[in-house]
This record gives sequence, C-alpha cells and structure tokens, in this order.
Amino acid sequence: MPVSEDIGAFVPGPRVRIEGRRDGPLAGLTFVAKDLFDVAGVPTGGGNHDWPNGRPIPEKHAWAVQTLLDAGVTLIGKTITDEVSLGILGENAFDGTPVNVRAPGRVPGGSSSGSAAAVAAGLCDTALGTDTGGSVRVPASFCGLYGIRPTHGRLPLAGMLPQAPTSDTTGWFARDAETFAKVSAVMLGEEIPSGLPTRLIVAVDTFGFADPEVTAALRPLVHKLGGLLGDVREEVMAPPGLSAWARAQRTLQPYEAWLTFKDWLDERNPRFAYSVARNLVMGALIPESERSWASLMRQEARGRMAYLLPVRTILCLPTTPFPAPLRGQRLSALDPLRDRITCLCAQGGLAGHPQLSIPGATVDGLPIGLSIIGPRGSDATLVAVARALAAVA
Amino acid sequence: MPVSEDIGAFVPGPRVRIEGRRDGPLAGLTFVAKDLFDVAGVPTGGGNHDWPNGRPIPEKHAWAVQTLLDAGVTLIGKTITDEVSLGILGENAFDGTPVNVRAPGRVPGGSSSGSAAAVAAGLCDTALGTDTGGSVRVPASFCGLYGIRPTHGRLPLAGMLPQAPTSDTTGWFARDAETFAKVSAVMLGEEIPSGLPTRLIVAVDTFGFADPEVTAALRPLVHKLGGLLGDVREEVMAPPGLSAWARAQRTLQPYEAWLTFKDWLDERNPRFAYSVARNLVMGALIPESERSWASLMRQEARGRMAYLLPVRTILCLPTTPFPAPLRGQRLSALDPLRDRITCLCAQGGLAGHPQLSIPGATVDGLPIGLSIIGPRGSDATLVAVARALAAVA
Repeated sequence: MPVSEDIGAFVPGPRVRIEGRRDGPLAGLTFVAKDLFDVAGVPTGGGNHDWPNGRPIPEKHAWAVQTLLDAGVTLIGKTITDEVSLGILGENAFDGTPVNVRAPGRVPGGSSSGSAAAVAAGLCDTALGTDTGGSVRVPASFCGLYGIRPTHGRLPLAGMLPQAPTSDTTGWFARDAETFAKVSAVMLGEEIPSGLPTRLIVAVDTFGFADPEVTAALRPLVHKLGGLLGDVREEVMAPPGLSAWARAQRTLQPYEAWLTFKDWLDERNPRFAYSVARNLVMGALIPESERSWASLMRQEARGRMAYLLPVRTILCLPTTPFPAPLRGQRLSALDPLRDRITCLCAQGGLAGHPQLSIPGATVDGLPIGLSIIGPRGSDATLVAVARALAAVA
Repeated sequence: MPVSEDIGAFVPGPRVRIEGRRDGPLAGLTFVAKDLFDVAGVPTGGGNHDWPNGRPIPEKHAWAVQTLLDAGVTLIGKTITDEVSLGILGENAFDGTPVNVRAPGRVPGGSSSGSAAAVAAGLCDTALGTDTGGSVRVPASFCGLYGIRPTHGRLPLAGMLPQAPTSDTTGWFARDAETFAKVSAVMLGEEIPSGLPTRLIVAVDTFGFADPEVTAALRPLVHKLGGLLGDVREEVMAPPGLSAWARAQRTLQPYEAWLTFKDWLDERNPRFAYSVARNLVMGALIPESERSWASLMRQEARGRMAYLLPVRTILCLPTTPFPAPLRGQRLSALDPLRDRITCLCAQGGLAGHPQLSIPGATVDGLPIGLSIIGPRGSDATLVAVARALAAVA
C-alpha cells in the first residue's frame, strides 16, 4: 500500500481512534468515517464550521459506525466532506481538498472526499461515505476504488447527517475486491453469494455521453463482465434523456436539501462557500410546478429501471463521464462538469437501485470507474460480480 | 466620553496606527476607517476572510484616509464591517458584532458597524464609513451619532472597496456637532456656512411609516428645526410609495453588487454568511425587465427629490423606522426589519442627495436619528443646520 500522506491530511477535526471488537470477523481492519456520521463523544462536523455550534455532542455512534466497530474494524479518524454533503468534487473551502494520490493535482471527488482519498492513500482498509446524488460513486471513480451506493432505504441511517432523505444512502469504499466483499457482507448483514446474474445490459446512452476516451478505457472491463455473465445486450437506460433525469434530480434534491437545512439557515445564518450557499438558495426558489414535473419523471425513471432490471440482470455504465478534474478551477468551469456528472448519477437518487463502482480502468493514468446496477435489494449480488470480475485473470 | 471597550473589539485585523500631520487643522483628533478603505501596507479585509486572498497589499492610502491624515487626524484602527458592505445591521459572522454602547444587547447597524460603534464608545473622535443603501445613516441612527451620506459623486472613492457604484458614497461620523463640522469641512473641502436654509419640508409619509414611538420621539427635534428655519410645510416624499422606491433600490443595488463581485465569486468561491451569499445570488437572478422598471423609478425619484428640494430648502425624515434591533435574531425576523429600513433609506441610493443623520432623540433609552436631506451639493449646509440645531438650547 502506498502511504504517501498522513491521516491528518484527510481529517478536519480532532483525532479519533476507537478499537473494533477484538473477536469481530473483521478484526485487524481499519476504517475512517465521513464527518457526517456520529461518533459518540465527538462533535459531528458536517464539513461546515458552523454546523456543530449549539448542537449536543453525540452520545451514540451512528448505526454504520457501530456496525463496523462490532465487526472488529477499528475507527482511525473522521474525514473531510463537502459542506453538509452539498458538493460532488470534494473541494471544501473550510477544511481543504483531500489529496487524491491516484490523480495528483486533481480533485478526489465528493462529497465523501476524505473517506475515499484516505482509502486510496492506503491509510485505512475501508471507509464510510454517504451517497445522495453520487457522493460515494464519484469519489470511487476518481480515486480508483470500489464503492457502493446501496439500495435506498435498505440500511438504517441513524446518526447520519441527512441531506435529501428520499435519496440519502450510506455507502463504503475499499481498494480491493476481497476486502470490499468482507466489509459489504457485514454492512449488508448478508453473505456475498457465489451465483452471478446471467444478463448484462450495456446502457448505450451513458457510454455515448461519457468522454470517448472513457468509453474506450472501460471497453475491456465491459467485455470481461459480459464474458462472466453470458448474455449481453444493449439498451438505452433513460429514453427521455440522461439530461432530463438529471434535471429531475437537480430539482428534487436541492429542494429537499433546503427543507432539511432551512431552520438551521434561518436560526444560525451559517457560513458557506459561495457555491454551497447558492445551491441552497436555488433549492429554496424551485417552484412547485418544477417539483411536480420532477416527481413524475422520477416515477417514470423508477418504472424504467425496474423494467430494465428483472432478477438475474445487471446494467453497466461509466460511473463518471470523465476522470478527476483539476483542483482549484473557477466555478464557471466546474459547474458544467458537475452537471455532466449528474447525468450519469441521477438514476441513483431517482430510482434507488443499488450501484457499485468498480476500479481498474484509467485514462492517461487517471482512474475511471465502471458501475454496475442491479434490481433493488441485489446489493450483495453486485458485490459478488465485482469479486468475480477481479478474480478473472 | 465613556470608554467601555478596548479598540480591539471593533477591529478585525492587525493593529494600525498612523499619525496625522502635526500641523494639520485637526491635529490631536483620532479616527478609525472601515476596513473597506485602503491603508498603505495593510491588507484591506473587506469584512470577509477570503477577500484579501490573492490581492496585492495596498501601496497608497484611500483618498478619504489620506485626506484626514493630511488634516492632522491620527488613524488608530481599521474597523469591522458587514461582509463587502452587504448588510445593514452590523452582524458579521467572521469578525463578530461590534458592541453598541448606546444600546446594549442590540446591533450597532451596518455596514459601517465598527466605525460607528468605536465613535459611540468614545475610542476615537471620528470615523470613515461607506453608504450605498444606508450603511452610514443606519449605524448613525442606532448608535446616536452624527453621520453623513454626501452627495453621490462628489467625493473621490479612490481606494475604497466598491459595491454598487451608482449608489456608493464615503461618509463619516462624530459624537458632537462641533467635531462633526470640523471633520466635514476637511472632507468636503469647503467651509461650513453660517447661513441656513429657509424652508423645512416634513416628509409625512416617512413619519407615518416609522414606529409611532419613533415619530413621537423625533417631534421635539423637528419642532426645534422648524423654529430654526422658519417656513415649515408637510409633503409626501415618495408619491408612488416608500416601498416602491425601496423595491427599485433593492433591484438596482443587488444587481450592481453582483456585477461588482461576480468575477471574484467565480474565481475564488469565497466563504460568506448564508444571508450575504443569498443577497448575491438573488442579485444575479434579477431579470432585465425588473431592472428596466427600477431604472425608470429611479429617474422618477430623482425628479421628485429635485422638485422637493430647490435651493434653501431641506427635508426631514426619521433615519430609521425603529431603534437598533436585538442582536442574534433569526433571519426570518431580521429580513422584514431590513426591508423596512430600506423604505426609509432608498432615496439616498436612488437620487444621490446628501443626507445627514442627527442624534438627540431616544425611544426607551435607545438612540434614534432625525435625518435632513438637501439639494445635491448642499452637504456643507446640512452640516451647518446640524451645528445650529445643537447650539439651540
């Protein structure tokens, strides 16, 4: 493992270490938790320096933290996140941008930026993140990691700072498929099966939307995956357009985020980077007519994903349309990138299917992930596919 | 003078002291400058911790600072301001809220908050502020000071951080009329005349709009002023409504502020209190149709003020509709207060006439200012009126 950075570079607040249960099945492994998860006795920072003000210090670990500790995994830190999880690139104006050792000079992706970056740097074995609009999937892709957004509603979110509850999930990362499978079995409370799906759908609209170099770089992985499952067919994932799905997600999610945070904004007038405040203000301004349209589009997206994904079927797509962008760019350069990312991530928040990003491809040396999506509840099967794929020579 | 606070409570950055010219006419007096004015060798903070980043340290004093130093006034500090002058109450999430010794537990008013508060606390004799939408007038009223917003375009703004150039002005404060007159003569480059106007217009719509207690508290001052000038008549200042003028100002000013700051926002994604970022985002969203309407309303307001204020005429109104509000209130409580303040301040930005706030009245012990407005260029005459009024038993 390359250990090129001290854990301090990924941790915004006080150092934390809590030993996992000695007799747990994962004893010996270590993890970090995004600073949206409660750790008893430690203020939850939320990536925003005004978030902890006036809030009680948590007395209980978040469900996800407790689950890993009980399994024997030792917590070694709480990691930098985009402010209250509003961000997809991982640049935090208060705590800095975690170093992406796999793509020097580039963003780690967000909002689970520090969690992904710390795993990529080899400082821990696994890490907890959250994914509302892509916040596990995007850093997994940019940092070259396995990362999962589980089926929405499957895992308890107790002790996790919410953003948009109809899209919020808890996810995790690992560098290798075996570790990822072990952690996933614990988190999902389910054995990783040995049987695999029998059909692969290649979402042609998503591969057409990604940069051509990304599509070319992912081709060998898709080919291997097809060989593993047998039946391969091409389909359009989003007939109304990936941009129409993205628009629906960009309508529903910021409005819900505004509902989540508006009392805090009103009472505390907290400090934010301009782009984060803008996101919240724009959420507040979304008219009911837009939300109605977006809700209908969400229903359609759910119907489409359920149709595409009967049992024993998975779908693949590029996790992100490009590898990690350069750090420190202007907002006017980043905004279109963020919008393009949302076009490949919107199905997660809209339809709630589980999605796993698989590393292994690169463009000019920069990691890029291949995602697989399965039926709702098929999380363990996706993990099985990732493990089987890694085992193929 | 009550010296209840150290100057440090009003100063966000490094201590600064620059002696005034020993042979200047005001030698022996001291001043502070709002941290929007350049002082050579000191970063201009702008009330926002990201403003100075990447900017050169000023090599020259701002015109207003140089003018006071040349007159012999010694600079003893740079003072807290609302972020990049966007705020009217004086609560700064980065630097804190300067203590208003005249109204304990209440805001000092902004954006020239630290300047007004330091003068009120007796820590200096005068102070430089800026007034775009009320930023000298409001803290003058809340802190019980003399304060002037000069004729727009009269004084050089070199070395002053701009906000909305068609409304921006440089103003100043003092506790007593004599000091105020001396400083004004230097800043205006003009003797304060002995002759007074001969007609007082009482703006009945403004007194009707203020809290009844404010109108009652100001009545003795208005009466004294009428006695001094002779001819008193009542007029409506804003026939379309104070709220229509306020709406025009709240359209033009935030849009211009956005134009001023948008490249910085884009390049640096700076941190702001939520309310300040919201102000900028809303400025960016103002449609051309609203701006066209507001420009016409501004032309009407200019015509109205010119009609009301021929030579030897002044108009009086309450500076603010109420005394200083309590500190630390929710945004949803403060937003309507801010809007009401704008109804009594909008004429300054719209029409550009000089306005001077006179202290002397209180409501439940809290200061409240009476403003006088004169024809464009009559700044020195307004100062003469204030001095003559103070001399009346």
